[in-house]
Amino acid sequence: MAAARVSGKALDHAVLCGLVGYNVRRAELYMRQEFERNLGARRFRPGEFSALVLIAANPQVTQSGLAHAMGIRPPNMVGLIGRLERRKLVRRAADPRDRRNQTLDTTAKGESLLREARRQVAAGDRRAARALSRDERAQLISLLRRLHGIG
Amino acid sequence: MAAARVSGKALDHAVLCGLVGYNVRRAELYMRQEFERNLGARRFRPGEFSALVLIAANPQVTQSGLAHAMGIRPPNMVGLIGRLERRKLVRRAADPRDRRNQTLDTTAKGESLLREARRQVAAGDRRAARALSRDERAQLISLLRRLHGIG
Repeated sequence: MAAARVSGKALDHAVLCGLVGYNVRRAELYMRQEFERNLGARRFRPGEFSALVLIAANPQVTQSGLAHAMGIRPPNMVGLIGRLERRKLVRRAADPRDRRNQTLDTTAKGESLLREARRQVAAGDRRAARALSRDERAQLISLLRRLHGIG
Repeated sequence: MAAARVSGKALDHAVLCGLVGYNVRRAELYMRQEFERNLGARRFRPGEFSALVLIAANPQVTQSGLAHAMGIRPPNMVGLIGRLERRKLVRRAADPRDRRNQTLDTTAKGESLLREARRQVAAGDRRAARALSRDERAQLISLLRRLHGIG
């Protein structure tokens, strides 16, 4: 058998290309790399940015409520929030209604960082999707939202 | 200030919803959960399935070529291939053209598992995207491919 030895780029991946799952994974990888190129200097990961946005928009959100909203398992949430707290971007407090819970709020430093990061992320997101027209980008977002069923 | 305490589902995430990156992440999470629900009994992760498909379609592919094609860093590739090898689904051999390289091939057991898994994955992928019509699914795949720029 003539074995097709191929370099990375040229690999035959026809079977995978017809799968939504495979293309969503590749798109997620691509967007994450673009995000890191864009926001890496601020030491922000996509999940940290999302968490900060959600905490700012939802004062006194509980950690478990945030985990649920982000589709993240509570153990993974602990590390993420810990990183934001050590950087003094968010603050924890005991929930007055249920002492077993903790609520989260952004600090002034967190708000200020977020204001700039938000602009940078929005611009980076548009730049990353420059292969698509404005309408196609909107269409992609709409299809993805129907796929994952959130919001 | 009347703090809007909200449960997980109801969190305000308007800022994030307009980002391609956020929606791609949520879609990836959703598709991964669906994949695991579907293929979990076979102890297959999405990346392991992709690797097995690529190895089967590209005989004697090198490990580094595969890592490159999958957009995975070589250290992460080692663990992934190790898992497939321990399950006797793939086989490593020294590359006759370059002894520092190793080539990969599927075993008969790998081929046989793949035949069934492929059907299951294709059916599961369509089921996971049931919120979209056939045309919309094709459109989503086409937009994602232009976004990530592969293939």
